[in-house]
Amino acid sequence: MVSKQILEDLKKGSAIRAMFVEGKALAERMGAENVYDFSLGNPCTPVPEAYTKAMLDIIREEDSLSIHGYMDNAGYPQVRKLVADSLNQRFGTDFDEGNILMTAGAAGGINVILRTLLEPEEEVMVFVPYFTEYRNYCQNWRGKLVEVNPDYDTFLPDFTDMERKLSPKTKAVLINNPVNPSGVVYTEEVIKKIAALLEKKQKEYGHEIYLISDEPYRELVFDGKSVPFLTHYYKNTLVAYSFSKSLSIPGDRIGYIVVPKEMADYETVFAGLSIANRIIGFVNAPALMQKTVARCLYERTDVEFYDQNRKLIYGELLKLGFTCVKPEGTFYLFVKSPVPNEKQFVEAAKKHHILLVGGSTFACPGYVRLAYCVPYETIERSLKAFAALAEEFGLGEHRAQ
Amino acid sequence: MVSKQILEDLKKGSAIRAMFVEGKALAERMGAENVYDFSLGNPCTPVPEAYTKAMLDIIREEDSLSIHGYMDNAGYPQVRKLVADSLNQRFGTDFDEGNILMTAGAAGGINVILRTLLEPEEEVMVFVPYFTEYRNYCQNWRGKLVEVNPDYDTFLPDFTDMERKLSPKTKAVLINNPVNPSGVVYTEEVIKKIAALLEKKQKEYGHEIYLISDEPYRELVFDGKSVPFLTHYYKNTLVAYSFSKSLSIPGDRIGYIVVPKEMADYETVFAGLSIANRIIGFVNAPALMQKTVARCLYERTDVEFYDQNRKLIYGELLKLGFTCVKPEGTFYLFVKSPVPNEKQFVEAAKKHHILLVGGSTFACPGYVRLAYCVPYETIERSLKAFAALAEEFGLGEHRAQ
Repeated sequence: MVSKQILEDLKKGSAIRAMFVEGKALAERMGAENVYDFSLGNPCTPVPEAYTKAMLDIIREEDSLSIHGYMDNAGYPQVRKLVADSLNQRFGTDFDEGNILMTAGAAGGINVILRTLLEPEEEVMVFVPYFTEYRNYCQNWRGKLVEVNPDYDTFLPDFTDMERKLSPKTKAVLINNPVNPSGVVYTEEVIKKIAALLEKKQKEYGHEIYLISDEPYRELVFDGKSVPFLTHYYKNTLVAYSFSKSLSIPGDRIGYIVVPKEMADYETVFAGLSIANRIIGFVNAPALMQKTVARCLYERTDVEFYDQNRKLIYGELLKLGFTCVKPEGTFYLFVKSPVPNEKQFVEAAKKHHILLVGGSTFACPGYVRLAYCVPYETIERSLKAFAALAEEFGLGEHRAQ
Repeated sequence: MVSKQILEDLKKGSAIRAMFVEGKALAERMGAENVYDFSLGNPCTPVPEAYTKAMLDIIREEDSLSIHGYMDNAGYPQVRKLVADSLNQRFGTDFDEGNILMTAGAAGGINVILRTLLEPEEEVMVFVPYFTEYRNYCQNWRGKLVEVNPDYDTFLPDFTDMERKLSPKTKAVLINNPVNPSGVVYTEEVIKKIAALLEKKQKEYGHEIYLISDEPYRELVFDGKSVPFLTHYYKNTLVAYSFSKSLSIPGDRIGYIVVPKEMADYETVFAGLSIANRIIGFVNAPALMQKTVARCLYERTDVEFYDQNRKLIYGELLKLGFTCVKPEGTFYLFVKSPVPNEKQFVEAAKKHHILLVGGSTFACPGYVRLAYCVPYETIERSLKAFAALAEEFGLGEHRAQ
């Protein structure tokens, strides 16, 4: 007697869960070292020592009622000030504590934002391929998800499709930079195009369209790339950040929302976000984690580790004849399935003990996601299996012709 | 351009916020020691040393990726097992990890439950006076709140009113035991009456009615009272617990939901709760806090401290001629306003530097809530002010007549 929506989610979810169960059974039968599990986006690089030290120091030094107690729903003002300072230093912004609201990760942040903004039936635009949870976040608040097609050569947005699908019901456009699952980074040029289109449509419709940027992978970029800071390009922007990947602490549920004061109705929006944070039941981002990240704002996990994995797996897959847009961020590759029905490819890969997630999960059939946040040795060991898989699909021969 | 509901909340919220601001200004003007702030339900007793020690031990001893990493959305199985064991030992239940889902406090837990169960327009029954957030939690998921009147002599539910208001649209009945704001404890007899009525109506309607029990104050009971464990009395029960008050750690956002396996569709409900926990954006209860509370399941903050406060303020208020239902749990008193419009009384109290919250906030006008989670000395110092307030409303004279 659960709600219809949750019941539907249960049915959909069981396919992925079934794969995990199969993977586990496979590992038991074949030995874990002979199974190449690229299905999960779970950070595997060490938590920075500075994070552990900061947490120990805080627990030993500060008053226990203060580090485990209530504070403003927006978070400790001092923590928010330090986050603002760090952004100012890195991105040349001019933020103070009034621009920052601490959240339970980016997942918490996006739900807080959508709870604050959405009326039922209003539209939230997303770009294919997208993180599968966006659909759920949007459904939580009875919004309507509108999918924009990608340019399949670059996996950047198809701007013609975007313009066609913007409507007077569009309340927000939700981007993810860098993109899970494609690993693509939206450059300044892309952001400017999105901003220009939204400015134009805001005028046309006579109301705000909010640009929400989900940035848990902001620090995981390679080849000297960087992620443009959106408030420089568009006033009605809300950035949802998470420390889950940059510090390898996804279980700690800590992140923040950036709200520029130049935004329309800034004060109402900020106060609304605080209320939403409270009434959804977050109340506040975990207190101790707020204080801890405030001491680690310039710390990073080992990004170089992910980069080495990326170079190895991307290079080898291309050599084997696979097609894949060049990944410049996150720890994912989005590989084209050699056959139109990617489920067939996922099944074939599984026979070679390679676990992948089908692109349909990201509203993009015909592709598979490979999460390379695994030990380097796992990738090395998997290469033979990928070679066999390529051969099975005639990829080597293809290239030779 | 925030949603209409959030805008409404903003308007309503500002009255309470205005009082806090006024209180602060008062403290600045008069000196904090001359202001008697009984408005906030913020724990003030020490965090048990065992909690601090457990946290330090875990950080020093366990693998950092494991204590800050992802786990099942329901929480670490080992933690859930330990919670189940502790309940079995205390309440003679027969739970295992399959009965426990770790949440971000009880506020998180209730939202997860309502997200899982509610269809829009379904009804959630609550008992006046009730924690003001229940209205918001219900609105989050587009449910309809239905209020049951109390028996004003005992502040227990008026069962005639309850029966009249149960309907085929009733999906859940949400109780709070002990009750914020009245301090009343629902005894076994009361619980049995509620259970019997729900059993009858379940049969009549041919579908489940869930009994949700919000129990953050479970351990704060006095005079040898105890809070009945609901799964013994009604199968379709969900208990939302929080460690916020029992360990004085409200900022840490940690609690759990109990789901009995005897419940109808237990497996679907439990799986649904896990999904809801994930998609609302909690993902999981903070990882480190899960591990820490698992080592402190028999620890309590200083309940005796609250009891002494209770005895002092309750005794003195009665002597002064105030009327108040006997509080046997929580750290609140619910005092009858000497005039029908309690806002007038709240204003008068403020002139004597006493800060209270009007009963209208709890859907129960004509009363005020007094939170006695303050230093004992604050209560002692406030007594003269209460005496003056009583005199102002002619309470002493009343009694002499």
